[in-house]
Amino acid sequence: MAETTLKEIAEKLGISITTVSKALKDYPDVSSKTKKAVIDLATELNYSPNSFAVNLRTKESKTIGLIIPEVVHHFFSNVINGIIAEAEKNGYLVIILQSNESLELEKKQVDLLIHKRVDGIIMSLSNDSNDDDHIKEILKRKIPFVQFDKISKLIPSSKVVINDQKAAMSAVQHLIDSGFKKIAYIRGPINPQNAIDRFIGYKRALETNQISFDPKLVYTCENVTFEEGVEFAKQIVMDHTDVEAIFCTTDLVAVGVLSYLNENNINVPNQIALMGFSNWFMSKVVQPKLSTVEQPSYEMGVESFNLLLEEINAEKKNIAFTPKIVELNTNIVIRESTKKNN
Amino acid sequence: MAETTLKEIAEKLGISITTVSKALKDYPDVSSKTKKAVIDLATELNYSPNSFAVNLRTKESKTIGLIIPEVVHHFFSNVINGIIAEAEKNGYLVIILQSNESLELEKKQVDLLIHKRVDGIIMSLSNDSNDDDHIKEILKRKIPFVQFDKISKLIPSSKVVINDQKAAMSAVQHLIDSGFKKIAYIRGPINPQNAIDRFIGYKRALETNQISFDPKLVYTCENVTFEEGVEFAKQIVMDHTDVEAIFCTTDLVAVGVLSYLNENNINVPNQIALMGFSNWFMSKVVQPKLSTVEQPSYEMGVESFNLLLEEINAEKKNIAFTPKIVELNTNIVIRESTKKNN
Repeated sequence: MAETTLKEIAEKLGISITTVSKALKDYPDVSSKTKKAVIDLATELNYSPNSFAVNLRTKESKTIGLIIPEVVHHFFSNVINGIIAEAEKNGYLVIILQSNESLELEKKQVDLLIHKRVDGIIMSLSNDSNDDDHIKEILKRKIPFVQFDKISKLIPSSKVVINDQKAAMSAVQHLIDSGFKKIAYIRGPINPQNAIDRFIGYKRALETNQISFDPKLVYTCENVTFEEGVEFAKQIVMDHTDVEAIFCTTDLVAVGVLSYLNENNINVPNQIALMGFSNWFMSKVVQPKLSTVEQPSYEMGVESFNLLLEEINAEKKNIAFTPKIVELNTNIVIRESTKKNN
Repeated sequence: MAETTLKEIAEKLGISITTVSKALKDYPDVSSKTKKAVIDLATELNYSPNSFAVNLRTKESKTIGLIIPEVVHHFFSNVINGIIAEAEKNGYLVIILQSNESLELEKKQVDLLIHKRVDGIIMSLSNDSNDDDHIKEILKRKIPFVQFDKISKLIPSSKVVINDQKAAMSAVQHLIDSGFKKIAYIRGPINPQNAIDRFIGYKRALETNQISFDPKLVYTCENVTFEEGVEFAKQIVMDHTDVEAIFCTTDLVAVGVLSYLNENNINVPNQIALMGFSNWFMSKVVQPKLSTVEQPSYEMGVESFNLLLEEINAEKKNIAFTPKIVELNTNIVIRESTKKNN
């Protein structure tokens, strides 16, 4: 890439580099005639101020890093959408890295972003993350940092979350209110805080309604996939002939369950009711349409960026910043998969 | 962010900045004792070489820019996945910008990436793009550049595409072979080359089979949404009581059509057959399952990055680079929505 430098412009116009620089910055001690000549030549030569050089001076890159587990994922792609829209409004660019749910990759990526000197980092932990030394490194270096969705509670950073426990409780309460008592639960992996919280919500809803908790009704996903939904549906139907409803940790898994039940002519919801979590787009196009929990993904992205920006700005002005926790509301979306006899 | 500089390290150890710099770069003329002292202190102080300063010297940012129309989009999110996976393997970071199908935003984003001095740009044009001055600017500045999917044929850059004409022809041929003759087509917008090519493919398939082309059977999407699918399905059923099949420019639109037909008890495929394009994940979970054209999205991302890298490397070595066009194969995925009497 052939670059035009201030020096070239200065030489061509027979003026000093300082004058060129001042002209481009519209200093009052440069004549308007000179300014015009400099700007015209700079435009002609495709001069662009070296943004990396600017960085050295202002110590800002106007770039933030985002580490997420998966891009091809309705929830996360909506969060990305919210983050880049909000970043753009505020003049920031977003580097996106995908951990593929691997702790090892996630560590490497944190390191990369630190060395790239981004102005801040937004992150949702991989399912694999059971160690947070790399996260502590971000805080140690005082890099503005926001966690969302899959967070580490122990890390004292800003966070954007939903109340997973409460949301799962409402979902199970909806099933109970609809007349289903024997409810199987396909839960998320062991590590992520949100999977733990949703599981607690499931148990609490049962307790509140005097339904005894049966650990045999709980199935644990490793990768939270459509295929696991298909597989667990098969197992649940074999293990518990009298199961009345299945609650799933996410819509993708629920759609896998639905696919198995439909193919085996098990009527949803009349034989088995089904409830998802997250309200993915496809949940309203499957048959029957899936009841689920609406999780505000785009808003989660917007809030995450705004919290990060607040910290970046505080840092710039050398003002102490106290991490904030933003909890977004969820609500139950009732569709056909939980409406008996319809 | 408190930064440790070479100067601080030099002062603390009572040696010159040059020695510190040499020690960190493992120069042979620095004693191993000094090297160890420098490295230990640098580690202790969290010193990281200033990557933006490095950029000034090597003129490389090891960062590329990607401009795509939409992130929350099964096809594009798979392409992103391919690009960032391949970029990561090669030590590059990816800045992702979303044009929201707007030419104005797209122009602004090209300008941003140019000023950010990324090493290269990968792009799929917005539906709105009917002007390519901003793209010419990229070439003028000799920034390595790859177009994919929605491309401008007139821009002499590397491109990763499918043969949209041929793919659409095969899709319509499959419908004709399955016994459907009166085939409506819900096409993409007027500007994008791929929408034009798919439309030509539809017409050609009819011609080849001596079926006369009826422009009244063609409906044009503005935004290529689920909702447009629902709306056009309603119109098609009203306008053409004898329509036998509907071919859609993308699966999202086809799923909208399916949703309308299902809700109005019009049997797919026995009353109206349905064919999509792109093979989105949800196409295999709707009922009936959607026949479609498999478009290799992840591979498109991988190929796009690799072509860009080839050009970046040629540029670095000052070797002339001739743009390449990679055409990926597509194939027909036959599911239930085109199988009559099943």
